[in-house]
Amino acid sequence: MDSNTICAISTPPGQGGIAVIRISGEAAITIVNALFEQTGKEKGKSTILLKEGYTLTHGNLMDEDKIIDEVMIALFRGPHSYTGEDTVEISCHGSIYIQQQILQLLVRSGCRIALPGEFTQRAFLNKKMDLSQAEAVADLIASNSASAHNMAIKQMRGGFSKELNALRANLLRFVSLIELELDFSEEDVHFANRDQLYELASDIHTHISRLAGSFSVGNALKNGIPVAIVGETNAGKSTLLNLLLNEERALVSNIHGTTRDVIEDTIVIQGVTYRFIDTAGIRKTNDIIENMGIELTYKKIEQASIILWMIDCTQVSEHIEWMASKIVPRAKNKKLILVFNKIDNVCEEEIDVLDNLFSDVDAERIHISAKDKLNINLLEDMITRAAHLPQISSEDFIVNNARHYEALVQADKSIIRVQEGIKNHISGDFLSQDIRECMHYLGEITGEINADEILGNIFSHFCIGK
Amino acid sequence: MDSNTICAISTPPGQGGIAVIRISGEAAITIVNALFEQTGKEKGKSTILLKEGYTLTHGNLMDEDKIIDEVMIALFRGPHSYTGEDTVEISCHGSIYIQQQILQLLVRSGCRIALPGEFTQRAFLNKKMDLSQAEAVADLIASNSASAHNMAIKQMRGGFSKELNALRANLLRFVSLIELELDFSEEDVHFANRDQLYELASDIHTHISRLAGSFSVGNALKNGIPVAIVGETNAGKSTLLNLLLNEERALVSNIHGTTRDVIEDTIVIQGVTYRFIDTAGIRKTNDIIENMGIELTYKKIEQASIILWMIDCTQVSEHIEWMASKIVPRAKNKKLILVFNKIDNVCEEEIDVLDNLFSDVDAERIHISAKDKLNINLLEDMITRAAHLPQISSEDFIVNNARHYEALVQADKSIIRVQEGIKNHISGDFLSQDIRECMHYLGEITGEINADEILGNIFSHFCIGK
Repeated sequence: MDSNTICAISTPPGQGGIAVIRISGEAAITIVNALFEQTGKEKGKSTILLKEGYTLTHGNLMDEDKIIDEVMIALFRGPHSYTGEDTVEISCHGSIYIQQQILQLLVRSGCRIALPGEFTQRAFLNKKMDLSQAEAVADLIASNSASAHNMAIKQMRGGFSKELNALRANLLRFVSLIELELDFSEEDVHFANRDQLYELASDIHTHISRLAGSFSVGNALKNGIPVAIVGETNAGKSTLLNLLLNEERALVSNIHGTTRDVIEDTIVIQGVTYRFIDTAGIRKTNDIIENMGIELTYKKIEQASIILWMIDCTQVSEHIEWMASKIVPRAKNKKLILVFNKIDNVCEEEIDVLDNLFSDVDAERIHISAKDKLNINLLEDMITRAAHLPQISSEDFIVNNARHYEALVQADKSIIRVQEGIKNHISGDFLSQDIRECMHYLGEITGEINADEILGNIFSHFCIGK
Repeated sequence: MDSNTICAISTPPGQGGIAVIRISGEAAITIVNALFEQTGKEKGKSTILLKEGYTLTHGNLMDEDKIIDEVMIALFRGPHSYTGEDTVEISCHGSIYIQQQILQLLVRSGCRIALPGEFTQRAFLNKKMDLSQAEAVADLIASNSASAHNMAIKQMRGGFSKELNALRANLLRFVSLIELELDFSEEDVHFANRDQLYELASDIHTHISRLAGSFSVGNALKNGIPVAIVGETNAGKSTLLNLLLNEERALVSNIHGTTRDVIEDTIVIQGVTYRFIDTAGIRKTNDIIENMGIELTYKKIEQASIILWMIDCTQVSEHIEWMASKIVPRAKNKKLILVFNKIDNVCEEEIDVLDNLFSDVDAERIHISAKDKLNINLLEDMITRAAHLPQISSEDFIVNNARHYEALVQADKSIIRVQEGIKNHISGDFLSQDIRECMHYLGEITGEINADEILGNIFSHFCIGK
């Protein structure tokens, strides 16, 4: 394990009221102490060396005789810290210049700039959390909706890991008995009750396959449910998108320039993230280039879970049947919603005529005016119903991490082989091998089993300072 | 005074490893306590009510039964806090969603979102700092160079205020004696020794006028020394600017997207900020619009302290004398530097010819290649010398705040009237009036004397959360 003392700015980049610089490692306290001059009653004494953990001390951070800033020092003594090591957090004024000066001062004093996620990696290596909990920290920081936040909090609190560890403990008990049999192989004894083992394998299979099955939901909740908006140009696609974007933007209006940095068309509706996929307008044409664009639209329809077909009520295309023949088959097994837009410009009779035109299309339908913000809430309700997300109870754990999903699929394959093996009365050494393989994959999730490249890959996706 | 409990995100906006939400006011501790659930040894007990100040407590922040985040609570009990009130700082995971959820939760629990600078305003109202110190906090956060940082730190630490308060105390002693004389006006006594008063007034005048005189330097250091770059198009102005920008950028490379938000062409060279003013190329033309642009260039030359005249060595204009006749007179009393660019493309003889062409121009000259980064350090040294900043000793205080400068100018006028009054043996009541006026202006700086609109104006320029 790397025993260097590391430092990084842990607060978001840029200028603010305050910023926090985190230092962790063997020398964290002595390094900061050498730069620190306490003010107030105990002025001049550098007493953080003697301070208890979980205390705050006010004073000046000095570069020799020069005051860099008045700061607040938060002290944590290992193992009672986030990383499990001695840790100091310096709260300074949030000037970019000061943040840089302090960082440079710490580096000159012997700290090293932390790699992305290195604080959390140390927490993992010091057994303050397991690997799936560490991964949840990154998910939590990236969470931008209630559902993503819920999943991350649950995973960070370790319920998932406990579940997996219980499964592994059960498997270990059996595999030990089976391996004991092998020592007595000439006597053909069965220490491990095959019926009980079969029952356990069935339980585990049910459990694992339920978890693996939750990945499609978990992934959708984490990365957004794909929604394709199709329709002719000028049907009002952009107006609708902006409307949905802005309504949600209002909620986070006092946070500047944040959501914009993510994919432009990610929209949170009723606590769930949707990934809106803009498409080129579909129309009958002989233009080769334009047809390539339309082919791409078809592909996007196939990738989506929900398709909004926007129809301009004031200008219905003569090719409506042709369009339906292109869209409807591709929307099979997906949710297709016909969105009749611009109803502020047509009378009821016209709407009825329109409805008739689409009577053959098996889809939900809604009448809106994006311009007048009419029925937008109803559309949001309809999208939420179309997403058809299972109610997540506080009991259920949802897998939303591709690495976990892969491991679960492999673990499931192994446990199925165990079940089949028992049925076919295969020998204990083969059974043992499959059980060990299942344990291996479950252990990969929590980090009981880990390869350096897996760790490197996981933590490199963290932000710096966490 | 507003006794509401206020809250705000104090760390820079956006996503990061951690974020800090600050709550200050009478109910700060009870409000946070009601939302907090301690974990660890004292699990389940909400003990921050009983915690001492300057302590940290780890636990969960709850929205009823739902965990919003695992947080660290820093507790400060008034008057031993930044604002002087009970204050809680919640360190949470730096997800934008979580920051918003906590802020909304606090508002639902009875907090109000803080106005910009409101924490510091409360610190001022609770006499934790005076007004010039409070203003220094905003300057410190905005400081982006060593010199701006030095000035802000010095002002925040209150040396300036102590100086002004000492002057006011001296004046108060004399004005009291003079006003006592007024009670005995029929007896024509002089409790206040006029010679001593004159000496004091002279001292104060020297002092105040030195401070007021430092404003031109202070303002330049704070807002940047204006440097105009003139020359024909394609002389390499942009290449040079980018070069200077990038060299400094490299120093702050691990902070993202910050300097870009400020004026594009502010460049810190050797700890001092320069405001580079781009100008339209100057050439002889009859085009009315183009001539308007050139007129604007002349104005910018007049506003600048330093003028860099960029000359393309490979392509010297035939109008060089005409250009000199336009630039040189406007550069009078300013520093003019001839920057011969692209010397990588010419031989020494050609450079000599060029130098001769400009032999009449009274200016420093330097030969560079912006493309090959040749002699850029020398140019930076030359700019630094041209800025001709007095060495700031740790003794001297530099005024960099326009409000302070205005008050000092007014105070100086009053004290000069006091000096003249004594010389002309004017009566005590007039003297007293002028001394009181001087005291008033000095008191405005530290906030001894303040009007609500001054306060409102000062604190509205703060960032939220400080």
